[in-house]
Parts: sequence; structure tokens; C-alpha cells
Amino acid sequence: MRLLIPIFLLFSISTFSQKPRLRDYGIEVGVLKPGKHNAITDVAGVKVGHTTLSIGDSIRTGVTAILPHDKGVYQWKVPAAIYIGNGYGKLAGYSQVKELGNIETPIILTNTLSVAAATEALITHTITQPGNENVGSVNSVVGETNDGYLNDIRGRHVKEEHVLAALKNAESGKVAEGNVGAGTGTVCFQYKGGIGTSSRVIPENLGGYTVGVLVQTNFGGVFELNGVPIAKELDNYPRAYTYDVDGSCMMVVMTDAPVDARNLERMAKRAIMGLAKTGGIASNGSGDYVIAVSTAKENLISNNSQSPIMQNSFLKNGAMTPLFLATIEATQEAIYNSLFGAETTVGRDGHEIKALPIDKVLEIMKKHEGLKE
Amino acid sequence: MRLLIPIFLLFSISTFSQKPRLRDYGIEVGVLKPGKHNAITDVAGVKVGHTTLSIGDSIRTGVTAILPHDKGVYQWKVPAAIYIGNGYGKLAGYSQVKELGNIETPIILTNTLSVAAATEALITHTITQPGNENVGSVNSVVGETNDGYLNDIRGRHVKEEHVLAALKNAESGKVAEGNVGAGTGTVCFQYKGGIGTSSRVIPENLGGYTVGVLVQTNFGGVFELNGVPIAKELDNYPRAYTYDVDGSCMMVVMTDAPVDARNLERMAKRAIMGLAKTGGIASNGSGDYVIAVSTAKENLISNNSQSPIMQNSFLKNGAMTPLFLATIEATQEAIYNSLFGAETTVGRDGHEIKALPIDKVLEIMKKHEGLKE
Amino acid sequence: MRLLIPIFLLFSISTFSQKPRLRDYGIEVGVLKPGKHNAITDVAGVKVGHTTLSIGDSIRTGVTAILPHDKGVYQWKVPAAIYIGNGYGKLAGYSQVKELGNIETPIILTNTLSVAAATEALITHTITQPGNENVGSVNSVVGETNDGYLNDIRGRHVKEEHVLAALKNAESGKVAEGNVGAGTGTVCFQYKGGIGTSSRVIPENLGGYTVGVLVQTNFGGVFELNGVPIAKELDNYPRAYTYDVDGSCMMVVMTDAPVDARNLERMAKRAIMGLAKTGGIASNGSGDYVIAVSTAKENLISNNSQSPIMQNSFLKNGAMTPLFLATIEATQEAIYNSLFGAETTVGRDGHEIKALPIDKVLEIMKKHEGLKE
Amino acid sequence: MRLLIPIFLLFSISTFSQKPRLRDYGIEVGVLKPGKHNAITDVAGVKVGHTTLSIGDSIRTGVTAILPHDKGVYQWKVPAAIYIGNGYGKLAGYSQVKELGNIETPIILTNTLSVAAATEALITHTITQPGNENVGSVNSVVGETNDGYLNDIRGRHVKEEHVLAALKNAESGKVAEGNVGAGTGTVCFQYKGGIGTSSRVIPENLGGYTVGVLVQTNFGGVFELNGVPIAKELDNYPRAYTYDVDGSCMMVVMTDAPVDARNLERMAKRAIMGLAKTGGIASNGSGDYVIAVSTAKENLISNNSQSPIMQNSFLKNGAMTPLFLATIEATQEAIYNSLFGAETTVGRDGHEIKALPIDKVLEIMKKHEGLKE
Repeated sequence: MRLLIPIFLLFSISTFSQKPRLRDYGIEVGVLKPGKHNAITDVAGVKVGHTTLSIGDSIRTGVTAILPHDKGVYQWKVPAAIYIGNGYGKLAGYSQVKELGNIETPIILTNTLSVAAATEALITHTITQPGNENVGSVNSVVGETNDGYLNDIRGRHVKEEHVLAALKNAESGKVAEGNVGAGTGTVCFQYKGGIGTSSRVIPENLGGYTVGVLVQTNFGGVFELNGVPIAKELDNYPRAYTYDVDGSCMMVVMTDAPVDARNLERMAKRAIMGLAKTGGIASNGSGDYVIAVSTAKENLISNNSQSPIMQNSFLKNGAMTPLFLATIEATQEAIYNSLFGAETTVGRDGHEIKALPIDKVLEIMKKHEGLKE
Repeated sequence: MRLLIPIFLLFSISTFSQKPRLRDYGIEVGVLKPGKHNAITDVAGVKVGHTTLSIGDSIRTGVTAILPHDKGVYQWKVPAAIYIGNGYGKLAGYSQVKELGNIETPIILTNTLSVAAATEALITHTITQPGNENVGSVNSVVGETNDGYLNDIRGRHVKEEHVLAALKNAESGKVAEGNVGAGTGTVCFQYKGGIGTSSRVIPENLGGYTVGVLVQTNFGGVFELNGVPIAKELDNYPRAYTYDVDGSCMMVVMTDAPVDARNLERMAKRAIMGLAKTGGIASNGSGDYVIAVSTAKENLISNNSQSPIMQNSFLKNGAMTPLFLATIEATQEAIYNSLFGAETTVGRDGHEIKALPIDKVLEIMKKHEGLKE
Repeated sequence: MRLLIPIFLLFSISTFSQKPRLRDYGIEVGVLKPGKHNAITDVAGVKVGHTTLSIGDSIRTGVTAILPHDKGVYQWKVPAAIYIGNGYGKLAGYSQVKELGNIETPIILTNTLSVAAATEALITHTITQPGNENVGSVNSVVGETNDGYLNDIRGRHVKEEHVLAALKNAESGKVAEGNVGAGTGTVCFQYKGGIGTSSRVIPENLGGYTVGVLVQTNFGGVFELNGVPIAKELDNYPRAYTYDVDGSCMMVVMTDAPVDARNLERMAKRAIMGLAKTGGIASNGSGDYVIAVSTAKENLISNNSQSPIMQNSFLKNGAMTPLFLATIEATQEAIYNSLFGAETTVGRDGHEIKALPIDKVLEIMKKHEGLKE
Repeated sequence: MRLLIPIFLLFSISTFSQKPRLRDYGIEVGVLKPGKHNAITDVAGVKVGHTTLSIGDSIRTGVTAILPHDKGVYQWKVPAAIYIGNGYGKLAGYSQVKELGNIETPIILTNTLSVAAATEALITHTITQPGNENVGSVNSVVGETNDGYLNDIRGRHVKEEHVLAALKNAESGKVAEGNVGAGTGTVCFQYKGGIGTSSRVIPENLGGYTVGVLVQTNFGGVFELNGVPIAKELDNYPRAYTYDVDGSCMMVVMTDAPVDARNLERMAKRAIMGLAKTGGIASNGSGDYVIAVSTAKENLISNNSQSPIMQNSFLKNGAMTPLFLATIEATQEAIYNSLFGAETTVGRDGHEIKALPIDKVLEIMKKHEGLKE
């Protein structure tokens, strides 16, 4: 098993040769502007790390870690909420986040049968950090989608070390997309899905806040790109409804806006609206979860503070609307980026999933005047 | 006040001179087929009635009633669920529907400050029906949106008699859209909104069930028609985010599919995805509620049956996906129909809201190849 | 109908000849100390008003109003939550409180079929207050229980004027209990129930906060007084389970502790635990709702403030436990006080409900050493 | 590590020398009758297995498995619901149970940091069963409480093999209580807690159904035995509120009554009412979860059936009340049994937790006439 380590580290580097993203083709989504990297990492302090396990004929899976800030998350918890769009999934950590309104670990995404490995790894990560010598309770937050068509999911190839590596790898700046990390083996709209990310910056007069979204796309429906009916034109959608359109989408929303847990849950609900705009239908078998976090420094929750009272500065309900719009747009574009970033993949039992045929898609977009001049 | 009666009855008839609907222009939504009337009344037994109050300079409001079947609803309750997309609203009846999984009155839509009048009317309607002589508990289900820009909402002009008239008026077949009933004074995407409806029929091999949706549109966002960016092209959206995009959308979903309350709640959640596809953003001030009902005869809940056990035939979780897709599509198209059906309206304090400029919209659609040949 | 006014005002005064309360007999509940009046009004600024309608042979109903502070509630909203213990009820206002985390009207309790009248009255109350000239949206919060055994509930005798009178009557200090206001016609554990109240003060070293509870008791189960099996000893409980133990309990929790909406919902959940300790079982037909409000001045929500940010001081999760205990104890004792305060009542169709036989209860308590020396 | 196996198996047998239970002392709880074993296993087909890890100075933990029936649970899923009383816990499986209304694995209880091990074991258990060769998605249901005061919880000594052993050990009939399985290291009301169980049988004329409850007690508050204030009399409760009353309680409710997921959730809510009656307060740090399952054969959900429709026989809402009462009583008594069954334990760092001083408790009960003649 030790032999795997150099291989997967190699992959997590080599896959970074990014394909062009949606905006590189002149296609914009929505009316708000993205941040510098058009990525979840545009939220200051947020880091993303991947461990990609693409080994042999049948292992096509991995781990993606998202860290809200540089400090230990257990000692500096972040206001957070999780919204369950469709709960056919195995996400770990829901009830404590709902009850307490915060998250105390980094967020891990992986495959359905590796949630336990990731949970274990987050405990190890947490209890071995300086200052946590007496910690005996850790609420690991782990999301997943099922990559079992391409990946030997029953083999449970993700191990604690892979999760710890993703946490260690995590970086700010550009984020690898497509067949990386937890997106290595996923399928979206019957094309190769994967990891995608995007961001939006609210106008200065409304606070200038950034909202970043990262998705792990593995879901079905009738694909549309900015409303252009790609799936219909490509004649590639589950028209007879006799085969499976199931799958799942994990969505992680980060913002530097000072938002409390209640309003973070409201933001999280809007991510599903972004998913809807890509043609996703949240089918019965879909596990569609949104984890939303505010990283605003003034509201970090110190684990050690002795005062019974916490002073907070939170946005009022009435100031939330621009953040809702930002969440919708960034989620929609992150899903597109996951498809544009992914590559044709052959995996378990010779199963092949093709990448989105970008040339054809661009042709269709042109016909529909969906490209900027 | 008595004088109002002939006037409002007149209106509820005269407004039925229906404008062309979306499909009359060759624009289709989604991949499923609509039912005969492309209306919520395509679900057998469902009836809709309107009372339109457009009186003098400042009364622009009304009532829309939706009945799930011909029998008394209290004696023959229907499996039902209510999903709260964004809860900034005054809907009556939520908690009992959630607890018991059924609805025991017709559904009434009206304006925000007239929920009490409609609640009262549903009690009157129920306790005066034959067989209900001893009924002392009625869970009125009433939804609302705020028509206060065009309507003198503080005047609370909707009275019990108007609600009872809408119930009495209710008919199967074609449904009046636009400025009628509860849609008389509503505003959607900064154009005149109102009542809209649509339906979808699931393919025979999947059960051949019908899903019908009726909406009361009064919400904001960045309008898109099948993804075509109408609001951007018309330069009519809240770009500076400095003015209000608030508002609400009431959505009523009916199906003849045998669906239990849990799965009806899942269907209800998908209506919000249909709303998202029109460019709605569920702003802070929006009250976006979905009421979903199954009218399948085999599962009607008799109020008088003495057996402690009920035999049911319900669709399994795994059979729900086509109904999810149908709900999304019918909601999206019902919203479009509400805009296409509405007419420019002048109301309270001379406030004017223009109808959607259909010629310009069609031009834009043509440019984007959004029209069938 | 006008003739009623002097009568009901008279009643609301005359009923104040308070019977001895539980503690007057030396029976204490729990381990925390009550406040000065052992009433919800021990929370500074809170006022309670009753309108009692006990008229002729068959009207046994009324209204109880609870005001969180002296200012207009619409202009100075309070952090709040509503917990639904069992949702077989018609409470108005739930979804907006859940969504926004606040309450913008006083709280009204009344009978099941008079929620509409109370909703209407709260709108009138709100839109006629100075400063609310442009208010066109009001989220009335109204709870209810069904007093239809003693009261001609179908007659809907509660009118807007009665509700406005209860609001106007509202006072701090002692609170009338038993057959008053919304408790005039209620039944609890097959004895006469009604309005009850109690409070707890947290030790100074934990903040010294006050928690006050007011209940409207109309529910069933197997009555216990501090665990002493009164119902069993009196042989008065639904042993054969063949008749109805249904009914409902409305619980209102006020605190001056600075608690946010999320933690108020957690407090609200504990009120049901207090109900459980009296022998209540939350039967199928019970509408058991808890409305929890924080009146802390530093967190009142100004309707007019223009800043998008609100500075708050809220108790941390870790400081909530004493408030949970206080809520449980005060709810339990408030329920007991409602029974001790109530008097035998004859109402509709000659129906009679006896008061709790206090002498016998005290004997049983003595046998079980449940009385202090 | 292999050496552990014979040791823990030994323990799981030796601990079965049951101490007298509550009823052996003539103390009854409530008004309904228990089943034959007064245990969760009175529900036909239900089995319970323990693996007790009491090794050396500092390992005091274990695993308890509850199986709803004899068949593979993945192939014959059971209607189920999970209610979150207070969500400070790490329970696995919540969202899928909520979404789909069923459970597809046995239920495992263990310690807080061993949820991952148990999740993994349930996957292994499931995917290795005949007929599950292609299963690639398993929703493990695992509850936990934190035994870190007595147990070296950070050592994560529970391994997959221990969980599989508990599943294999599972038997019908008598259930070991106290310091066994997942209760080996737990603390309740500052005495030694553990596993407890109880059952109730509904009168024949109401269906004759059985409700069984099993609890893992690790929570705080002010202990009462049938309302008798034991903690006050023993002067052993967190009076100053300056030390921790935290902890958790896992409750598993099984019934042979034909109850659907919605009504199972309602039953689950009543278990918290039973907990309340023991003096539990659901403190901030408590993870109080109830898992409720219906084992009625007519409603088992076949994984392989091809029909889109399922025929069900479910109890109506109106027939639920006796089951609510049964759930309250059985939970209350199961908690008492966990305390009566537990023994003084010394664990990690020499920490000692005394067993409930039964002689003193009985004296106090006698004084309060809480014992039958």
C-alpha cells in the first residue's frame, strides 16, 4: 500500500495542466463579476487540496480538501450551515452543524464508501494538532458522491493517508478542476464530471464581499449551458427515463461576508437553484448537499475563550440578497467548469465516460448567440 | 360593500379573454409534453376559481381557489406537503400539513394582508358543508403574495364573500391567467405578473401520470426565458442591487400520481428549481412556498372511516424522478405563462407596471434561436 | 355585538381574584428559584393582557396577549423561534419567524377557529401605530387551542375588538391564571385547564437571567405532580385509551438573556420536556407549540436602521444549559399553576369540567412526601 | 491487536450476569404493561448484540448492535425515522433516512470517535452478504455517546472486527444491560450509566402492538425516579451549574406496529419526553438522537421488487397515541434499567464512576411511597 504514495502525489501534480475554462471561451454566467481566480480560493484564506487516485484499470477516485482559514479549525471554528437538497447521500457531520451553527474541521469530499476513512482522517488531523491534546470529540464534515461506475468503489481504496495528504497539499490560488481529487471518477449529465469552482464579488457599495463555490459533480438531468439546450441538441439525455439519471452533487460555498448560521443556510439553499439552471433535476438517487461557511475574521469562534457572551457583527437579513445571487451564479458556473475541466476516462470493467464534446458545444452556443462577440 | 359584488363577478368573467400563451408563440419548455389544457386542471378533478377585485383607482387584488377534487375536502382529505423555499410570507396551515401529511380544505391564494379573510372563509366553507355539522377544527391552507405596489393592500378589500365566490366559481378546463384572482396586482421581474399554469404528462411506460402547476408570480431576479437573457437584453434588472428585488411566488402542484406526503414534499422542493430556471433568486423578502397534493383516488383519506389501518398504494422512492422533472418543467412554464398572460396595470397612487413587452421578447428569442422553426 | 364590550371588560377584571398557586401550598418544582411574581412578567418589560369571554350558556373563550416590551414590536423586532412539538394546530406566523429569526408583533393566544380574527387584529394593531403608516406586510403570531367542548367554537365569538382589548389591557406584574383569556374554556388532564405562568432566575454567576413561561393548557395524558401519580391515584386517566386524550398546549417562553434565534429554538424544544414531566404525552391531536423570545435590549432589531450590519451580543452555545433547565422547570410549573388556578366550568350543551380537586391532590402529595415540612 | 479478540468475546459473555432490574424491586413506570422480557427484543425478530471492550486500565468502551429482523436489512429495508433531540453528536446516516424513510443496515451504537469504524464495518457487513455483490452504496446508521471520561477514547480502540462480532453475537430474548457494549464506559446523572432496555405492549383492542426501546445513557441533569427527587435527596446534582452536565443519550425504538416513516418520526420525538421524565435536560453538549423503526412484515421494502408501486398497510394518524405513550414509558424505564444494571467502574487515569447507590435509592423511594406494597 505504501507504494501508492508516490503515485498519487504525482497525479495530484500532473493533473494541474488545466484545460481552458468556460470563460476562456467567452462564455459568461450571470451578471456579477468573478474574483481573481474565479475560484473558491478567491475568498481570502481558503485553500483547496486534492489527492487523485487514478491507479491501474479500476481505481478512479480521490479526495478534495477545503480549508476555511490558516488556523486550526477546531480552535477557530467557523459559522456554517448545511442544506440538504436531496438527502440520498452519506454526508457526515450534519446534525452538529445544524445544532451549533459551526464547523470545527476542514471539509473533505470523497467517494460514497470512503466517508469513514475521511472521518477517521479528520479526527487524526484534529487530535494531533498542537493545542488539541485533550480533544475527545470531533465533528468531521465529509461529503461524497458515488463514483462506482468508473471506480472500484467496493474496494475502498481511499485511506487515511490520502485524506491527510489532500489536507497537506491544500493551497490558495488556482484550483485544479475536472478529473482531480474527489472528482476523479464522477459522471455528470452522462459526460465526465469532476471538480469545478467559481466565484463572484459583490459590488463595493453592497459590501464588496466574495462568494466562492467548489462542486463535485456526479449528477444527471437535461444539460443546459446558460439555458442553451445542449443535451437536446446533442440528443444525449435520458429521454425514455428508463435508465438511471441518478447521481449527486456536493457543493461547498465559502464567503468572507459576515454571515451567521441561519443566513448561511439560506445561502446554501440558493446553490441548489444554481444547480437547477444547469439542467440538474435532483433525481431520487441524488445526494445534493450544500455546505456554506463564513470565514469573516470578526466572527471566528474561539474554542478557548472563557466569556459566555460572543460579540458578533453579522449581515442583516435585508442585506443577504446579493449574496444569494452570487451563490446561484457561482454554483452554476462551477458546475460548467467541472465539465469543461474533465477528460475522457476509462475505468472499472472498461467503462468509458467521454468528456463533454467542447467543440460541438461551442458550435451550438454560437448558433444560439450564447457567445460574446 | 354590497355594491362590489356585481363588479367583481363581472371582472372574473371579462378577464377570461385570454392572451396568447407561451406555446402559442412556438416556445416550448423542457422535454416532457403538457396535458390537454397545459394547466393544473389537466389533473382530473382539479378545479380553479378566481375572484378579481379591480375596482376604482387603487384596488387591484383578488382570490384564486384551487380544489383537488369534487368531494368535500374535509371529509376526503388529500395527501399533501408544503415546502418552504424562502419563508418570508404568511402562508396559513403549514404545521398541520407537515404533521399529518394531508390537506383538509381547498387551497386559497390571495394578498398578504388578506390571509385572515381567506382563513375565515375556508372555515365557513367547511363547517357549513353537509356532514360537517360537528366539525370544530379546520386547518385552512392559504397562500399569499404582496400586491401592495399596485393595490391598496392596507385597505384589506378581500372579504369572506370574495373567497367563497372563488370557491363557487371554480371550474375544470381552461384557467384564466395573468391579471386575475390572486394575480390581479402582482409584479414579476419588474413586469406585470399574475396567475400562470402549466402541466406535464409522464410517458405511459412510467405511469402516464399528470403533474399540474399553478403559480401566483410576484418575485424578482434576472429574467431568463429558456435561458435566453431577456432581462439583460432589455436592460431591465436590478443591476445596482440598490433597489428592491423582493417579492414572492406561490406555487401549487397537483398530481394524479399516487404519492405520499414524504415524496410530495420532495416534488414540492423541485418547484423551486423551476422557479430558478426563470431567473428567480428567492431574494430575502420573498415568500416562496410550494403546496403539493396527490389526488389519486385510492389514497384519499376518509374522515369517517373507523379502521385504525389504511391500505395505500404509493409510488416508491425510485419511481419519483420523472415526477420531479415534470414539476420543474411545469413550474417554469407556469411562471412564463403568468407573464405572457398579464396586462399593463395602473393602480394605487398611479403606480404603473407594464406588461412584458412580448414583441421585443420574441425578437430576442429569435436572435437566440429560441423559437421553433 | 356591541353590548359585549362592557361584559367582557368586566370579566377580565373580576377574574383576577386569584386562587392559591402551587407554591402557596408548599410545593416546589425543580431546583432553580422563581422570580418575584413567579410569572412571565418577571422578564422586565413583558406584559400580559386577557380578554375573557364567558357569556351566556355557551360562550367560554377568550384572548391572551403577550407583549415582549414597551415599544412597538414592528419597529423593534425581537429575536425569536417557534418549535413545533406536535403540529396538529393552526398557529399563524411560523414560517417567517423560522426564516428571519424574529417576531414583529405581540403574541396572541385564542381558540382554534379564532386565529383569523386575531391575525386581523394584529394587522390593525400594527398598521395603525405611529411610524407604521407605510407598513404593508405584517407577520401576525397567533397560537390557539381548541376549547370546543365548553365553548361554542363554531360561533367564532372572538372578534377583532376583543383582541385589541387584550393588547390594551396588558400589564406587567401579577398575571391572572386559570379560566381567563385564552384559557377560559380549555381542558387539561380531564380537569379544567387554562392560563398558567411561572419563571426561573439563573444564578448570578451564570448571568442572573430570567426565563418566564406562560401556557394555555388544553391537553391530555396521565397527570403527575412532581412525579406523584395523581391521575392513577384519582383513577382518572384514559386507561382504556378508547376515548380522546387529545388537546393542545401553547407555550410562550420569554427571557432577558441575550439569545439568538438558533438558541431560542433550542430553548423552545426544552419546554416540551417540561410538559412531559406533568404527564403530557403530546397525543396525535395535540397542537403543542413553543414560541421563544429574547427581550435583551442590546439585540432588538430596529426596523429603520440603515446599516447592513448588526452588532450583537449573544450567549454562546456553551452557556445555554442553565437556560434549558430554567425553561423545563418554568414550563412544568406553569402547567401546574394553570390547573390550580382554574375553576369548575359549565358551558356549551351543559358540558361540565371540574376543577382539579385540590384537597385530594394535596392529600396524595402528603402521602408521597411531596410537600415541604 | 489480534490478542484482543478472545478477551472481548470473553467479556461479552461474562457481563451477562444481570443485576436486578428496576421492576425486580417492585417499581413500575407508567400505566402500560411491558412485554415478556421487558426489552427491545420483545418486538418479534429484533436481536441485540454487544461487544464489550474493558481491557487494561484505560479501555472502557464497546459496541452494541440492534438488528430489526432476520433477513439482510439491505435487501429488506425497514420504514424508519431519526429524530434529533439535541444534535451535538456524530450520528451517521441521518439524511438518507430522512429523505427515503427507511434504514438499510442494522443499527450500531459505539463511542464518539469510533463512528467511522462502525460505518466501515456496516459497509463490510452489507457488501459481503449474498445478493449484495453489486451494492456500491450503503447508508450505515451509527449512533454514539462520548465515553472519554472512563475510556481512552482518543485511542480509537473499537475496530471493524468488534463491530462485526456484535452483529454476529446478536440474539433475541434477554438483553444484557449496564456496563456492556456501547455502554461500557458511559456516565449518567453522575453515576455509571450504560445500556438499558424496556418494552410496552398496547392493549389488544388498540392493536396489541409492542414497542421496545434500547438506550445508551451518558447524559446529565437532575435525576428523578418516577418523579421522586433522588438527585436532590442524595445531594448529587450540578447545583452550582459550574461543572459539566453534558453528555448524550442514544435511543433506539422498535415496534411491530405498521407505522410509516412520518409517524415513526412522531414516535421518536416522544422518546425525548421519556428522557425528560428521568430528569434529563438535554444540555448543550448532549447528543440526543432517537432512531425509530417499524418491523411490520407487510411493509418491509424489498430492494429487488420491480414494481413502481408499493402496497402498504399503515396505522392512521389517529391510531398513534397509544404508541406515543408506550414510547415515553419504555424510554423512561430503559434509562432507569441502564442505571440499575451498571456497576462501579474505574477507567482511564484512575477515573472512577460509582454505580447508582441502589440501597439508598430504595430507601428514598420507600419514603416517597414510590414502591408497591
